[in-house]
Amino acid sequence: MPGNSFGEAFRFTTWGESHGPAIGCVIDGVPPLISLSESDIQPWLDKRRPGQSRYTTQRREPDRVEILSGVFEGRTTGTPIALVIRNEDQRSKDYGEIASKFRPGHADFTYFRKYGIRDYRGGGRSSARETAMRVAAGGVARKVIEQLLGAGRVSLRGALVEMGGRAVERARWDWDEVNRNLFFAPDAEAAAQWAEDLDKARKSGTSLGAIVEVVAEGVPAGLGEPVYDKLDADLAKAMMSINAVKGVEIGAGFEAARLDGEANADEMRMAGNQVSFLSNNAGGVLGGLSSGQDIVVRFAVKPTSSILTPRRTVDRFNRETEIVTRGRHDPCVGIRAVPVGEAMMALVLADHLLRHRGQVGHLPE
Amino acid sequence: MPGNSFGEAFRFTTWGESHGPAIGCVIDGVPPLISLSESDIQPWLDKRRPGQSRYTTQRREPDRVEILSGVFEGRTTGTPIALVIRNEDQRSKDYGEIASKFRPGHADFTYFRKYGIRDYRGGGRSSARETAMRVAAGGVARKVIEQLLGAGRVSLRGALVEMGGRAVERARWDWDEVNRNLFFAPDAEAAAQWAEDLDKARKSGTSLGAIVEVVAEGVPAGLGEPVYDKLDADLAKAMMSINAVKGVEIGAGFEAARLDGEANADEMRMAGNQVSFLSNNAGGVLGGLSSGQDIVVRFAVKPTSSILTPRRTVDRFNRETEIVTRGRHDPCVGIRAVPVGEAMMALVLADHLLRHRGQVGHLPE
Amino acid sequence: MPGNSFGEAFRFTTWGESHGPAIGCVIDGVPPLISLSESDIQPWLDKRRPGQSRYTTQRREPDRVEILSGVFEGRTTGTPIALVIRNEDQRSKDYGEIASKFRPGHADFTYFRKYGIRDYRGGGRSSARETAMRVAAGGVARKVIEQLLGAGRVSLRGALVEMGGRAVERARWDWDEVNRNLFFAPDAEAAAQWAEDLDKARKSGTSLGAIVEVVAEGVPAGLGEPVYDKLDADLAKAMMSINAVKGVEIGAGFEAARLDGEANADEMRMAGNQVSFLSNNAGGVLGGLSSGQDIVVRFAVKPTSSILTPRRTVDRFNRETEIVTRGRHDPCVGIRAVPVGEAMMALVLADHLLRHRGQVGHLPE
Amino acid sequence: MPGNSFGEAFRFTTWGESHGPAIGCVIDGVPPLISLSESDIQPWLDKRRPGQSRYTTQRREPDRVEILSGVFEGRTTGTPIALVIRNEDQRSKDYGEIASKFRPGHADFTYFRKYGIRDYRGGGRSSARETAMRVAAGGVARKVIEQLLGAGRVSLRGALVEMGGRAVERARWDWDEVNRNLFFAPDAEAAAQWAEDLDKARKSGTSLGAIVEVVAEGVPAGLGEPVYDKLDADLAKAMMSINAVKGVEIGAGFEAARLDGEANADEMRMAGNQVSFLSNNAGGVLGGLSSGQDIVVRFAVKPTSSILTPRRTVDRFNRETEIVTRGRHDPCVGIRAVPVGEAMMALVLADHLLRHRGQVGHLPE
Repeated sequence: MPGNSFGEAFRFTTWGESHGPAIGCVIDGVPPLISLSESDIQPWLDKRRPGQSRYTTQRREPDRVEILSGVFEGRTTGTPIALVIRNEDQRSKDYGEIASKFRPGHADFTYFRKYGIRDYRGGGRSSARETAMRVAAGGVARKVIEQLLGAGRVSLRGALVEMGGRAVERARWDWDEVNRNLFFAPDAEAAAQWAEDLDKARKSGTSLGAIVEVVAEGVPAGLGEPVYDKLDADLAKAMMSINAVKGVEIGAGFEAARLDGEANADEMRMAGNQVSFLSNNAGGVLGGLSSGQDIVVRFAVKPTSSILTPRRTVDRFNRETEIVTRGRHDPCVGIRAVPVGEAMMALVLADHLLRHRGQVGHLPE
Repeated sequence: MPGNSFGEAFRFTTWGESHGPAIGCVIDGVPPLISLSESDIQPWLDKRRPGQSRYTTQRREPDRVEILSGVFEGRTTGTPIALVIRNEDQRSKDYGEIASKFRPGHADFTYFRKYGIRDYRGGGRSSARETAMRVAAGGVARKVIEQLLGAGRVSLRGALVEMGGRAVERARWDWDEVNRNLFFAPDAEAAAQWAEDLDKARKSGTSLGAIVEVVAEGVPAGLGEPVYDKLDADLAKAMMSINAVKGVEIGAGFEAARLDGEANADEMRMAGNQVSFLSNNAGGVLGGLSSGQDIVVRFAVKPTSSILTPRRTVDRFNRETEIVTRGRHDPCVGIRAVPVGEAMMALVLADHLLRHRGQVGHLPE
Repeated sequence: MPGNSFGEAFRFTTWGESHGPAIGCVIDGVPPLISLSESDIQPWLDKRRPGQSRYTTQRREPDRVEILSGVFEGRTTGTPIALVIRNEDQRSKDYGEIASKFRPGHADFTYFRKYGIRDYRGGGRSSARETAMRVAAGGVARKVIEQLLGAGRVSLRGALVEMGGRAVERARWDWDEVNRNLFFAPDAEAAAQWAEDLDKARKSGTSLGAIVEVVAEGVPAGLGEPVYDKLDADLAKAMMSINAVKGVEIGAGFEAARLDGEANADEMRMAGNQVSFLSNNAGGVLGGLSSGQDIVVRFAVKPTSSILTPRRTVDRFNRETEIVTRGRHDPCVGIRAVPVGEAMMALVLADHLLRHRGQVGHLPE
Repeated sequence: MPGNSFGEAFRFTTWGESHGPAIGCVIDGVPPLISLSESDIQPWLDKRRPGQSRYTTQRREPDRVEILSGVFEGRTTGTPIALVIRNEDQRSKDYGEIASKFRPGHADFTYFRKYGIRDYRGGGRSSARETAMRVAAGGVARKVIEQLLGAGRVSLRGALVEMGGRAVERARWDWDEVNRNLFFAPDAEAAAQWAEDLDKARKSGTSLGAIVEVVAEGVPAGLGEPVYDKLDADLAKAMMSINAVKGVEIGAGFEAARLDGEANADEMRMAGNQVSFLSNNAGGVLGGLSSGQDIVVRFAVKPTSSILTPRRTVDRFNRETEIVTRGRHDPCVGIRAVPVGEAMMALVLADHLLRHRGQVGHLPE
C-alpha cells in the first residue's frame, strides 16, 4: 500500500530526504550471477549530477554510490542490493523561509495537508534529489537487460527535444551530439539557442519547461502484461512519477488523435525473415505489448517552480504572503530529467523482461 | 506479477474475452455497509453500451450486469464483489479472416509473439469489450467515494474535447450538453460538425481519433502516495491502459512545457478560510498529491484500427498479405472512451481514498 | 491490501458466499499453451464434494465447475482463467437461528465485530464452502506443475494421519489405501477404528479433530524465495488459512525441538550423481528453499464447531443465550481438509515455480 | 515477486549479509506524527544482541541502529524509514572451510542450487543475523500499535517454554521472571535446569531445540483479513519465516486436534458490557480474525545446525566429506528467537491495524 516502491519483479524501493544524512534504495529481484560494481552505476549518476554547469543547481554533490549488499566477489547473488549515497552539501540554512510558507508549484502545501507534518528542508522527500536513486537503480536495470538479452542488443537513450517552446529540428537529429552539449540536445543549433533562452530566463528570474524523448531500440516483440500492466501504461506511470512531469505520450501520441485510421495504421511487411513495420505511429507498443519497433516515449516537464520572481502564496497559518525561492535551483529541471527518463525506461524494461520470463518462460527473441 | 488487476486498496481484477461466454470482475476491498445493487452500476454501463447509434459498433449487447457476491440484504459486507455480464451477440463467424492475419494497429501480432497462441475472435482478451467491466467497477467506485466523502461532494465527469483534429470551443463549454448529443461533446456546435466529419470518415472507409477530458471536482487536498504511486502517476497508468490511448496529460499538460515559471505558477490566496489557487495549470495535482482544485486529465485516443480500407500486413506464417477489417466497429473509439475514462478516474480516486485512510487515518476534508 | 487473493505469480482470487448464487475464482498468471478443460479440475472437486458419506455434511452439491475464460481451443492463452460453481442446495431456512446468535468456534462474532454486518446464512464468506474454489484452482496448479517439470515428475498427495487423538500406524502406511476408505486414511485399521470413533462422536452430539499430512515427492532443489517468502513460510500460511486449522509443521516439526543437533542433522552423501540425504527431519526445506527431498507438511484441524450439544453463547444484542447448531455439518471437518491441503500445496508449488523462473531463469532440475 | 519484504500496509524490506559492510531495512507505511528515535528501537536490539552470555554466540556486535530517513524533528513524516546497522565483528577467516562444503541443516546447499552462487561468509543472506532488522522494525511497529490503540493498551511479550524437550511448569509461570534469566524463561526452575542441559550439550559438541511462546494481550476483536490474509495465517508465515523454525501453532494448536467439539468450544458469556470467553483454545483467533482474547502463538525451533560433532556431507564438487562447524554459534538458537518472535507479532499486528483502518475505517475498540 505504501508508495515508495516501483516494479513487480525488478522491485526497487527508495528512501531519503533532500537534507537528511543520506538517500538510498533497495533493489529486490536482481537475478544472480550478473557482474556488478559501483563503476557500472556511477557514470549514470555523473550524467545527472548537479553542479556541472550554470544551467543546473549549484548544489555540489559528488553523488558517490556505495553498494552495501547483494554482490559477492563481483557478481550478484540474487539477494537484495542496497545502494546508498551520502548527502554532503546540505546547507539547510538556505531553506529557512519555506518552513512555514508554501511555495507555489511545489509539494509543500499538499504534503502538509496529507501528513500534517513535512520536512521542509529542500523539499524533503518531495525533492528531485530522490531521482538520483532512480538513476542508480537504472544502472543496475541496464545490467539486467544486458544479461537477459545480450550485451549491445538494446540501446536506451534520451534527449531533450524542446525547451521553452522551441523544438529541435528532427532533420538535424544526431545522437552523438547529445553528449556534446549541456542540454542533452540532439541538435547543436537548438542547443545554442537554448543557451541564450535559458540565460535570458535566469536573468529575468524565471525558468523554462521542456520536453524529453526517450527511445529504446532493440527491444524484442511481446513484452508487457495485459491488460492493466501494459508496457505503455507502466511507462506512463514511470514517467509521470518523475518530479514536474505533466504529460506522457507514446509514438505519435496526441498527434495520433489527429490522424485518420488509414494514416495512423502502421502497415506490416516482411524484411527477410523479420516482420517489419512501414511506420511507427504506435511508438513500438501495440495492445500494451512491445512490437519490436523502437519504443518512443516523450514527457513534458513544467518550468522549475523555484524562481526569483516573487509569487503570491499563503503560509501554514492561512496567512497571505509572498515568496521568492532563493537557494540553488535548476533554471530548467527538464535538462536533468533526461538521464532520469532513461533510467525509468530501463527500470520498466528490466521489470517486464523478468515478469515475461516468469509467465511465458522463454524470453522474446 | 500477472497484469489483470488494478488498484491496491480498492483492487479489481477483470477476466473474459470478447467472444467467450461472459466477462466479469472481482472487486476486493470495498468497505462494508455501503448500499449497493445492480441499479447503481447499470446506468454507467448503459452509457457505454454498444449499438446505440450509427457512430458506435452495431454489436447488440444488453450488457446486463449481475452481482454474484459481496452484497447482503442490499449492503456490502466487506467481502469480494463479483460482477458478471454474459456475452450475447457474439457472431464469431464475422472474425474468420483474422484467425491468421495480423490486423495493423491491433494486438494480434504482439499477443501471438508473446504467448504463441491467441483467441482471435474479436480480439479476445485485447478487445475493448474488456472496458465494460471497468465501467461496472467504476460504478462501485463511485459509491465508495460517496460513502467516504459524502453524497454529492465529488463530481466526476468526462467529455470529448477533440475529434479528427477539431476541438470544442472552451467558451461554449456546457456540461449539460454532454448528455444531449451522441459524442459526449460539451459544445453542441462541435457535435454537429463531428457528426459530419465522422459520417464522411465512415463513408470513405476510415476512422477518426479523439481527445477525452475527465474532470473531478470536489476532491479534497492531500490524496496520493508519493513517490511512485502519485495520484497523477496512477491516473496516467489508468488512462494509458485503456485500449487505443497514446497520450495522457494533467492540467496544462504538454503546454506547461511551453510556459515560463512565472506564468505556470498557480499562485495561492485565501478565500475565506479556504486556500484558493488563482489558476490551475497543475490540473489539481502537486507533488503527486491532490491540491483541492479540480483534477483535470486528458487522454488521446488513436483512430479505430479496424477500417474498411485495405491495409498491407503479414500473417502468422510470415506471408505478406492485405486485410480489410469487416465486422462491427466504432468509427471513432474515442467516443465510448468517455465513460471508460470517467470510470478509471473513479477507480483511482476510490483506491487512493482507501489507501490514504489506511496510512494517515483521517480522511482529507 | 484486501485479503482474498493468494500467490504472487500464480495468483488466484476467490469470491462467493455459502448461500449466495455462486462461488468462483479468477486465476491470473497461468502460462499459455497448457491443455486445460473442466475434466482436469472436476475429479479433485469430486474428491472434496459434500454429501458422499455419513461422515460428511448432507448438503448435496454437484459442484460442477465451469471455465468462463482464459482457455481457447482447449489450451490456456495466458489470460485470466475464471472458474465458477453455482450453489444449488442452499436451504437457507436451516440457518435462521444464527442470524443473531454467535456460534462458539465460528467466525460469527469476529466478522460482526470487524464489519458491523455479516451474511449469516451458513457462515457466508467464512464458510468452508470457499475451499471448493481452492480445490478447483489446485487442479489448474497441478497442470502448471506438470507442464513446467514434466508429467509424472511430482507426486502430490495427502492423507489423514490422526483423528480424535488416534494416529495411523506408520508401519502400515499404504498410499493406495487412502482412496479406498472414507477417511483418506493410509492405514485400513485406523480407518476402521475411526469409523467407530466418529459414529460414537456423532451419536453423542459432538465432533472430532484430526491431523492431515501432505507430501510432495519429486520437487527439485532450490525452490522458494528468501527471506520472507520462504517455501515453508508460504506453506504455513497456506495451510493455516484453511478453515479450522490451528497448527502447521514441516518435517519433524515440533518434535525437532526435542532432538539434539546431532540427531536432527540430515547428513548428506552422494547417490550416484545425486546428492542424497540420510534422513528428512527438515521435511524437504532448508533455509526456506526446497532441498530435493520429499516436502512433508502436517496441519491440525480442530473438531467441527457446529455440534448438537448446547453451548453457552451471546447474541448480537449482548444477551446471554445457548445454541445448538443444527443444519448439515461434517462431524470431522479434517476429512475433507485432505484434498484442500493437497490443493494448497499445489498452489504454493506452482506459484514458486513461476517465481523462480522469473528470477533465476532456468527451472531447477 | 522478490521475497525480502513483509507486510502490506506496514511494509518492511530487509537487506544485507552476515559479513557484508552492513545490514538494514526500509519501512514504508509508517503513519506520520509518531514520535520516534533510535532509543525506541535500541532496547529491543539489545535484548537480542549476541555475545551477552555463554549461551549465545560470542560474536561481539554492538548492533547500534541508525535512522537515516523518515523522521523529522523527532516525529515520523509518513515517508520511508531507513534503518541501518554496521557489521563490526566480522572475522571472515573463521568461515573458510564452508566456502565449498555444504553444512547439514543450513541453507548452503539450497542457496547454491537455487542461485548457482552464494556468499558463504557466515551464511551470507541466510544467516540469522538478518533477524536483527526484524527486531529493529518490530520496535517501530510497537510504536505504531501504541499510537493507534493507545499507550499501554497492548502487551506483547514472549518466553521460552521448552528446551531440549523439557517444558516450563505452567503453574509457575511468571512474566517478571522472563527478564531475570538468560533464557527468557517464565519459570526460574526450568531456567536452572536448562542451564545444566545446555552446558552439557555444549560440552558434548551438540545443540538443543526449543519452543517459544508469544502472547499479545489487549488486541481488540476484528483484526485480520479473510480469507487468505487471516491474522493466524499471517502469524504462521511470520513465525515460519524465522530461521530454524519448523512448526507454528495457535492457541491449543495441535492439541486441538485431540479435543472433541464440546471440549474445544470456547463458550461465551457477558462480563459486564463485554463479551467474555470461558476458555481460549482458539488462541484469540476465530475465522482468521482476532476475538479480543489473548493471541497465543507457539513455534518450534530446531537445534542449532552448527555443531562441533563431525557430520557427513558433500561439497560443491559432489565429493563426499565431513564437516565440523567451528566459529561462533548459539548452542540453542531458540533463546534469541524470543525477541524475534515478539517482533514478528508486533509487525503482523501493526500491518493488520493499518489494513483494517484502510478497509473498515474505524479501528476496533
